[in-house]
Amino acid sequence: MKIAVDMAHEHLITREEAVLRVEPGQVDQLLHTRIDPSAHVEVLATGLAASPGAATGKAVFDADRAEFMAKAGEKVILVRIETNPDDVHGLIAAQGVLTSRGGRTSHAAVVARGMGKPCVAGAESIQVDQEKWFFVAGGRTVREGEEFTIDGSTGNVIAGSVPMIQPELSGELEELLRWADGLRRLQVWANGDYPRDAELARRFGAQGIGLCRTEHMFMEQERLPIVQAMILSADEAERRKHLAKLLPMQRGDFYGILKAMHGLPVVIRLLDPPLHEFLPSLEDLLVEVTRAQAKGEPEASYKDKTDLLRAVRALHEQNPMLGLRGCRLGLIFPEIIEMQVRGIIEAAVQLKKEGVDVRPEIMIPLISTVEELRRTKGYLQKTVDQVLSESGVEVAYKFGTMIELPRAALTAGEIAEEAEFFSFGTNDLTQTTFGFSRDDAEGKIIIPYVEKKILPTNPFETIDRGGVGRLMNIAVIEGRQVRPDLEVGICGEHGGDPESIAICEKLGLNYVSCSPYRVPVARLAAAHARLAVLERDR
Amino acid sequence: MKIAVDMAHEHLITREEAVLRVEPGQVDQLLHTRIDPSAHVEVLATGLAASPGAATGKAVFDADRAEFMAKAGEKVILVRIETNPDDVHGLIAAQGVLTSRGGRTSHAAVVARGMGKPCVAGAESIQVDQEKWFFVAGGRTVREGEEFTIDGSTGNVIAGSVPMIQPELSGELEELLRWADGLRRLQVWANGDYPRDAELARRFGAQGIGLCRTEHMFMEQERLPIVQAMILSADEAERRKHLAKLLPMQRGDFYGILKAMHGLPVVIRLLDPPLHEFLPSLEDLLVEVTRAQAKGEPEASYKDKTDLLRAVRALHEQNPMLGLRGCRLGLIFPEIIEMQVRGIIEAAVQLKKEGVDVRPEIMIPLISTVEELRRTKGYLQKTVDQVLSESGVEVAYKFGTMIELPRAALTAGEIAEEAEFFSFGTNDLTQTTFGFSRDDAEGKIIIPYVEKKILPTNPFETIDRGGVGRLMNIAVIEGRQVRPDLEVGICGEHGGDPESIAICEKLGLNYVSCSPYRVPVARLAAAHARLAVLERDR
Repeated sequence: MKIAVDMAHEHLITREEAVLRVEPGQVDQLLHTRIDPSAHVEVLATGLAASPGAATGKAVFDADRAEFMAKAGEKVILVRIETNPDDVHGLIAAQGVLTSRGGRTSHAAVVARGMGKPCVAGAESIQVDQEKWFFVAGGRTVREGEEFTIDGSTGNVIAGSVPMIQPELSGELEELLRWADGLRRLQVWANGDYPRDAELARRFGAQGIGLCRTEHMFMEQERLPIVQAMILSADEAERRKHLAKLLPMQRGDFYGILKAMHGLPVVIRLLDPPLHEFLPSLEDLLVEVTRAQAKGEPEASYKDKTDLLRAVRALHEQNPMLGLRGCRLGLIFPEIIEMQVRGIIEAAVQLKKEGVDVRPEIMIPLISTVEELRRTKGYLQKTVDQVLSESGVEVAYKFGTMIELPRAALTAGEIAEEAEFFSFGTNDLTQTTFGFSRDDAEGKIIIPYVEKKILPTNPFETIDRGGVGRLMNIAVIEGRQVRPDLEVGICGEHGGDPESIAICEKLGLNYVSCSPYRVPVARLAAAHARLAVLERDR
Repeated sequence: MKIAVDMAHEHLITREEAVLRVEPGQVDQLLHTRIDPSAHVEVLATGLAASPGAATGKAVFDADRAEFMAKAGEKVILVRIETNPDDVHGLIAAQGVLTSRGGRTSHAAVVARGMGKPCVAGAESIQVDQEKWFFVAGGRTVREGEEFTIDGSTGNVIAGSVPMIQPELSGELEELLRWADGLRRLQVWANGDYPRDAELARRFGAQGIGLCRTEHMFMEQERLPIVQAMILSADEAERRKHLAKLLPMQRGDFYGILKAMHGLPVVIRLLDPPLHEFLPSLEDLLVEVTRAQAKGEPEASYKDKTDLLRAVRALHEQNPMLGLRGCRLGLIFPEIIEMQVRGIIEAAVQLKKEGVDVRPEIMIPLISTVEELRRTKGYLQKTVDQVLSESGVEVAYKFGTMIELPRAALTAGEIAEEAEFFSFGTNDLTQTTFGFSRDDAEGKIIIPYVEKKILPTNPFETIDRGGVGRLMNIAVIEGRQVRPDLEVGICGEHGGDPESIAICEKLGLNYVSCSPYRVPVARLAAAHARLAVLERDR
């Protein structure tokens, strides 16, 4: 990379040639701590490369211990069978995370990528004993406090500590990326849920936030009890009471991210996951209640658990990925996303009064028919109008939708009548187009398929042209026929993958959106993609 | 109906006009016991109309009791929260079944339709107490032994007994259906798993079996222990040992159905469901093990349960609908479907030697890429060739696939290179196109959507033209471009729905396949659909 930049400075090659000589993968390497390639390492097991970078630390098996040890100055790696929202403080404290179950969209993987920390997920050959505090991998036992290493770029779990190379965001790299910016057509936006993500994204050159997920805000430790009480409310009145407590918090969230992104668009996705994701697990509750019953404890002593179990059971689904989530939630409990939209617009109004240029884009997820969008927009529009007319301030905002179900792509012409923007949710679109639940299929089916060459690549890493790509093409063409200025982007994880970025360039998308840490990679890949298209047309 | 036939006899109207004057829905009514429309009824609750017909019987809350009481000459209705394969003997004994949970593809609904018995499923407002043997509906408590009525054509649960009208398959109806047969282009096949289904289907006029599901054979009481031992095998050798025990049983199954359908095609679908469907439920095992632990029972006394729990947990999936099932099973455990194909071809050879004209069509489910089909066919072809060359007998057979995932429809041109026939699995195709898990979504989302007119109709009852229909159209056109004589049918439940049959006619399918009891309806509907197309083109 340094050589390419130097040669361009010396006019031995053009800037375009310099940009083309650097592979996006090289840039990614430069942005994460990596294992010294000359080091000898003992690989104990290999899981999914779920969040890039490498880290060494002492094994810890629960989030509280991780936080405690980190406060005592130790570097730790959190090891769990899988993580859930209760573990987030441990993830924050740890250098990285290792799980034995779950795919690249498991909780641990998504949170780690968002934090830019290494994660090896779904290392199924490892036996983790969370109660006795050890794991067994490759015939070795690693106990609490023992040092080991994970490499989230390869999925390797390695014995002991290993020499590392630190990342460097050098002047040369920044210069090369500026040259790339001059060559690319695709904008590069970032996915981010918090002001700190937005700031990082801007620093890396993001031109907008393409996906702000509001569910992470719901899962924060101090809010979760309110969210749970809201979900368990007996009726709408009670639900609204709890939502009223959440409103100032959400307004604060949106204030922060919109302010950090002043002058740039922020696509905010309304609540998407099934509500049971905010409640304790059915299995855990079942075990607790059964145990209390078997021990003959007085019923009153565990009545709260019994009640919670009943509620969780009522919300339980066979296939939650295909259940009550996305816009369906809003059509059944409108007051939840009404509160969110009120929060967004109130924050925007306040910032506008403070002189900040805000550009919120409200994204309604999981649309399968235009009528869902029409109804949802219909009642949300009233909230927007009310807030704006009370404030007397004008705010530019958009309503749009994710295209993440085959039917949305197939009826994009109808949907574009109601949507000012489309954002391809290619994780979900890949799941339904192939019929692959990522959490179940990635380890057990897709990886063997790629090994046996049944699939050329993992379709969750690189967009599948024949199926998913064809649906995207239908959606772009038919959507723009109806609304020529339709803004179209991608916010699935493919947004940071160079091969997928090349497909997005060919499809004529306006932007790709990826994790902040992938923004430099995407800026370079977008330039490569543009140059390839120009070369083809030449 | 009688008047229309009489008028045609008297040459007052043409036969075509007579056929057009009778609605398919009227034929369906004639084929099931129905409640006298003049009767006054007290509706206690309404669930899903999951299998047509009405029945009165005494409430029973477990399958063994149902069987016992039926043997004692009582008419009973089985009431369960939901049913599973362990309840089938109770379903056989009962007049009908009522469940408080699950959709139109729940176990109870599918089994009841296959047996032609009334079923009301997913009546969520009813509280069923399976342990204390009562249910509460509409403020009334119905205890074991109390008579009540279900109407599977409307979903109503009714107090007490009600006057009924018995079905009549009259000479007039048979004559009208023969006239319809002369007018239609679409063939009508039936879905059926057993020789008795095949015989019934032929009697109703079916021209083939469009879907023989082999998993029901695996679930029969005496076979399930072998199937479970096979699934829990430590390695391939052990799995093959158990499969060898299943082979003669499967051969017998195929012998029976192929013989009953002599001269007509039989599409046999290889094993499709996730393997955990054959094992006890995770929740039940978890409760049993937890209870034994809490009571301090010696570990050895429940070690088998602990082992089974571990195995079930390893097979557990977040979204089994999108998991390890269909052709994916066969690509990971080829020996299971190798055994099935051996059974099919051995049965065909034996029948051929006996002078029976057999036409097996081997259907590989859940294809998303042509490569899956190519590999699967590749190794199954060896089994076929081996059996045929050993026997020295020639058997006409086909290999084909279900089109039940969006990607299969979108890449049908590639898939047709390897498939001699397509069969649209529109239940699954609707699930993935919309992102609706039928069991979760039908009661909680789709029914409210239809009530609020967000959806015009339930897409699991009538094919959704804009999404699912568009995918079907792509598949038919692009499949036949590659293979002009491609046989294309539909075996989802839409195959018996008149509006969907009209869509299949327009798409140019070769046949529709439906429950045997729907065959007369489909014969009439196919004639209507054909006449409508001719009228349009006139």
